[in-house]
Amino acid sequence: MKSLLLSRRDLEFLLYEWLRVDELTRRDRFSEHSRDTYDAVLDLCEQLATRYFATHNKKSDANEPTFDGEKVTVIPEVKEAWDAFAQADLIAMSMDERLGGAQLPATVAQAAFAWFSAANVSTTGYLMLTMANANLLSRFGSDDQIEAYLKPMLAGRFSGTMALSETQAGSSLADITTRAEPQDDDSQAGNYRLFGSKMWISGAEHELTDNIVNLVLAKIPGGPAGTKGISLFIVPKYVLGDDGTVGERNDIVLAGLNHKMGQRGITNTVLNLGEGAFTPGGRPGAVGHLVGEPHRGIAYMFTMMNEARLGVGMGAVSLGYTGYLKSLKYARERPQGRPVSAKDPAAPQVPIIEHADVKRMLLAQKAYAEGGMALLLYCSKLVDLQETAQSDEERDRVSLLLDMLTPVGKSWPSQWCLAANDLAIQVHGGYGYTREYDVEQHYRDNRLNPIHEGTYGIQSLDLLGRKVPMRGGAGLAALGAEIGATVEQAAALGGEIAAQATQLDASWQRLVTVTAEMFAPGDVDAAMANSAIYLEAFGHIVVAWIWLQQALAAHTRTGDFYDGKRQAAQYFFRYELPKTAPQLDLLAALDRTTLDMRDEWF
Amino acid sequence: MKSLLLSRRDLEFLLYEWLRVDELTRRDRFSEHSRDTYDAVLDLCEQLATRYFATHNKKSDANEPTFDGEKVTVIPEVKEAWDAFAQADLIAMSMDERLGGAQLPATVAQAAFAWFSAANVSTTGYLMLTMANANLLSRFGSDDQIEAYLKPMLAGRFSGTMALSETQAGSSLADITTRAEPQDDDSQAGNYRLFGSKMWISGAEHELTDNIVNLVLAKIPGGPAGTKGISLFIVPKYVLGDDGTVGERNDIVLAGLNHKMGQRGITNTVLNLGEGAFTPGGRPGAVGHLVGEPHRGIAYMFTMMNEARLGVGMGAVSLGYTGYLKSLKYARERPQGRPVSAKDPAAPQVPIIEHADVKRMLLAQKAYAEGGMALLLYCSKLVDLQETAQSDEERDRVSLLLDMLTPVGKSWPSQWCLAANDLAIQVHGGYGYTREYDVEQHYRDNRLNPIHEGTYGIQSLDLLGRKVPMRGGAGLAALGAEIGATVEQAAALGGEIAAQATQLDASWQRLVTVTAEMFAPGDVDAAMANSAIYLEAFGHIVVAWIWLQQALAAHTRTGDFYDGKRQAAQYFFRYELPKTAPQLDLLAALDRTTLDMRDEWF
Repeated sequence: MKSLLLSRRDLEFLLYEWLRVDELTRRDRFSEHSRDTYDAVLDLCEQLATRYFATHNKKSDANEPTFDGEKVTVIPEVKEAWDAFAQADLIAMSMDERLGGAQLPATVAQAAFAWFSAANVSTTGYLMLTMANANLLSRFGSDDQIEAYLKPMLAGRFSGTMALSETQAGSSLADITTRAEPQDDDSQAGNYRLFGSKMWISGAEHELTDNIVNLVLAKIPGGPAGTKGISLFIVPKYVLGDDGTVGERNDIVLAGLNHKMGQRGITNTVLNLGEGAFTPGGRPGAVGHLVGEPHRGIAYMFTMMNEARLGVGMGAVSLGYTGYLKSLKYARERPQGRPVSAKDPAAPQVPIIEHADVKRMLLAQKAYAEGGMALLLYCSKLVDLQETAQSDEERDRVSLLLDMLTPVGKSWPSQWCLAANDLAIQVHGGYGYTREYDVEQHYRDNRLNPIHEGTYGIQSLDLLGRKVPMRGGAGLAALGAEIGATVEQAAALGGEIAAQATQLDASWQRLVTVTAEMFAPGDVDAAMANSAIYLEAFGHIVVAWIWLQQALAAHTRTGDFYDGKRQAAQYFFRYELPKTAPQLDLLAALDRTTLDMRDEWF
Repeated sequence: MKSLLLSRRDLEFLLYEWLRVDELTRRDRFSEHSRDTYDAVLDLCEQLATRYFATHNKKSDANEPTFDGEKVTVIPEVKEAWDAFAQADLIAMSMDERLGGAQLPATVAQAAFAWFSAANVSTTGYLMLTMANANLLSRFGSDDQIEAYLKPMLAGRFSGTMALSETQAGSSLADITTRAEPQDDDSQAGNYRLFGSKMWISGAEHELTDNIVNLVLAKIPGGPAGTKGISLFIVPKYVLGDDGTVGERNDIVLAGLNHKMGQRGITNTVLNLGEGAFTPGGRPGAVGHLVGEPHRGIAYMFTMMNEARLGVGMGAVSLGYTGYLKSLKYARERPQGRPVSAKDPAAPQVPIIEHADVKRMLLAQKAYAEGGMALLLYCSKLVDLQETAQSDEERDRVSLLLDMLTPVGKSWPSQWCLAANDLAIQVHGGYGYTREYDVEQHYRDNRLNPIHEGTYGIQSLDLLGRKVPMRGGAGLAALGAEIGATVEQAAALGGEIAAQATQLDASWQRLVTVTAEMFAPGDVDAAMANSAIYLEAFGHIVVAWIWLQQALAAHTRTGDFYDGKRQAAQYFFRYELPKTAPQLDLLAALDRTTLDMRDEWF
């Protein structure tokens, strides 16, 4: 039976027929690999996700973690899933061999990991955070820190979190107030004690692992104001003994759990640090170990943040994808109504997939889910190319592209794969609104994605305020060159695909012109006022390009799968890309409606 | 303190300054009323909704009704709210005086009722269904039925349901299989026994009232096929004795409760009829009383269905409205970040309402919520004018308008006020995703509205397949005449409002042209293929017209409230109406992408 999580056929098309990931094995870092090893990982992940993750997705939604004042209880299936994943050595799947990792390309690792997100985004969250934490420590941690914290995480004995936000500092990290005081006595030299609190920290309390490695942002007194005075610390739940064994309970404790609309299976916590709930070494204060240099915390975090943002995008894609497949199955099996032009009440009802409006809702989902998957795998391939760049020129070009595409990779699926889940409910009708079916949970789970790891608005400011103007528009130019190459290739083929190329080219040129018009008057407030609409238009144009690339990869190929790709591309070009025209007109006009609106007029 | 449910100021603007509902008192039916009685009802409803309904909205979401196999338990606050509403004689608020009703205009009654939906859409559902049921019986029930069932409902002793759908017949009512067998022995003459099952029936099991009056669609054997063979029956939970007292338990029983994503406070049931769970009169079969004539059930239901559809639209508006007010309050109180053009980390954070993107999200909500409220009150006024038409010409014109606007009144708010709730969450950031705040529940509750009482797709077929072509396009012409009159009035004023008039006129003319182009080739399948997109474009143009009417009513008036109306109208014309241009282009092209898509290509 075909999986209802993701389409393996589509993954193979994207990885091998389009992105030619097998060619990455020519690069040193991936030379131990082959299509066989990639396929084996994809097989394994599909199996584990299906067996250990999908099976308790509903149960963990209906039985969210509970806190009795001391311990947090999570349903036992989460631990079984954690163990299955860890025992398969998947936590280290893209880590360096020197750390015991499998050194898989990010492109393959992301595709493989998507099976888990599609199966159970909450349980997968514990793993994703641990992997992101480990990835950060592998780059910026000391040898001792790698030994003491990273390796137990890779083995699945410890788990990790990313503790950035505070109640008064979510989008605005500059305003965190957690402070880290250096300890000068002999026994503590090099260590810090942290005092403050953290908000929205996922996975920071549970009994799944022997220890929890919190990566905490805090300010060392006397440092610069704003984000330039923020440092990064390891603050473990249990302080380690000199021999690396789990020792005293650290003074970082759960103040409470946040109860969310979705993603209920993963604890989301409020943490207190240094309130004296525990007294490691005989006194209050959360023991923390500085990572790297003081005041460089935001820079370290942002390396990971970009990966985390793409991870959020992939999570959104996975939910959109599984919702699409489930509503497709439903539409094929559910009889209701008769053809518009041949209504005969005595004739049997037809499966709803025969109704044009249902096909529209399925095509839209296909375009969003497969388009999002392609976008994220494309970004992941850029990560691989950046990591293994053969020249400075290649590294520079690839980095520019990745910088430009990261806010899109995070935001576009968060918007459109949520829209896909909305359509998945609609295809199911009343059944989709019940908890008996899966799709309402996907919709609730997916609604987090436009919020965390930088809201939609924050991503739009990143794109328009930072990425577009960087280095005199070098990012925009680099992306334009790629798009131009695709356009040229498709235009040469004639027919529908050439028409799509022309349409994409026109949209992109218009975007470039409008971008220049927005900045020309030198009014930053006006230029940035509609940044969210800019991101939306930009994202749709990028995904049209991604669809054109898929259509190119499918060109001359025959069969249902390729016909489906062509039809989805056609859908995107006819139904979706035209939406950007009025958006670009609005942007070009530097419309001040929102800017001029006053608080007292609401 | 200003209410966070609805804006009384806005309701007064819409009712008195725009729709001039006070002038309705010149008509006989409403001659006992005055602005004073309208205001008293609005006061009362705001107070009761705030005190008895809003207070348990969260609690009933977290504690949905439970079924122990015999009884359904609902939290006690629902009964208190029911009683408070009933004791204030509100169930009969728009019913005829001959039945003990207050004979309020529908416009005022809808505005008054919206307070309850905004406060607690689930508890309000029990009342809404009872009122719709009573309304139907008041028109089509016999004198005996009115005495036995309607009057106890108006007194709040009985409640009512509408039992249409079956598992295999949701959108396709022609396919219901519940059958009603006439009883011929003396004691049963005129009665029927019903056998079958019903699905998705809200409010059909609880202990809030002494009896539940189910209005059930069923087929009398030997009748015509399809919808023309469907009849309507009263099937009470308890059969009444000759003296009208509640007697034997009828053979209509709860098979189970559906567990929904939202609107969890109201029971949603699967019902079995005639399975012998009870044996009224000593034998199985659900006792049913025919309403009106055989085979006229769908016609009777559809009278109510139109009101029910507008009721769904108003429910969606109410949720959109309260979400808007709550996110507005949050945005005013939440400090986060600093101005784009003046970032100084040492300066204090500003309330997020000062950020342009947050103002955009609030303006959009304002445009959707206030636009939706205006649309629904406009439709309600058409109901009043139809009811009290002074001439055949007036009745005809008003009926045409109401026919055209009903699918819009149902669907537009279901789409855009849900989008408003999505934005309300986004304004709240992470907090909005938690159950600590209200907005995530509004979003879940509102997601039902594009599904029930005819899905979005069904509404679009109704609009494009039935309403647009009816009587040679008479409905389109009638609406066009109204829009033309507004355009003429606004165009004469010059300035921004005249520009809006020009823009609306162009959009409407384009819609009319495109509509003709769609039907010209005589290919029904192609014409109907994108009916959902037609509905979306049509709805946005209608609401632009509604906003232009509001701008006209605010014209020459000064003050924050009117400035806000003007700015929201400007938002709608600049950010929203232009979205229809690519939609109309797609429709004009008679695009076949969805039609041509094949099952096997997915």
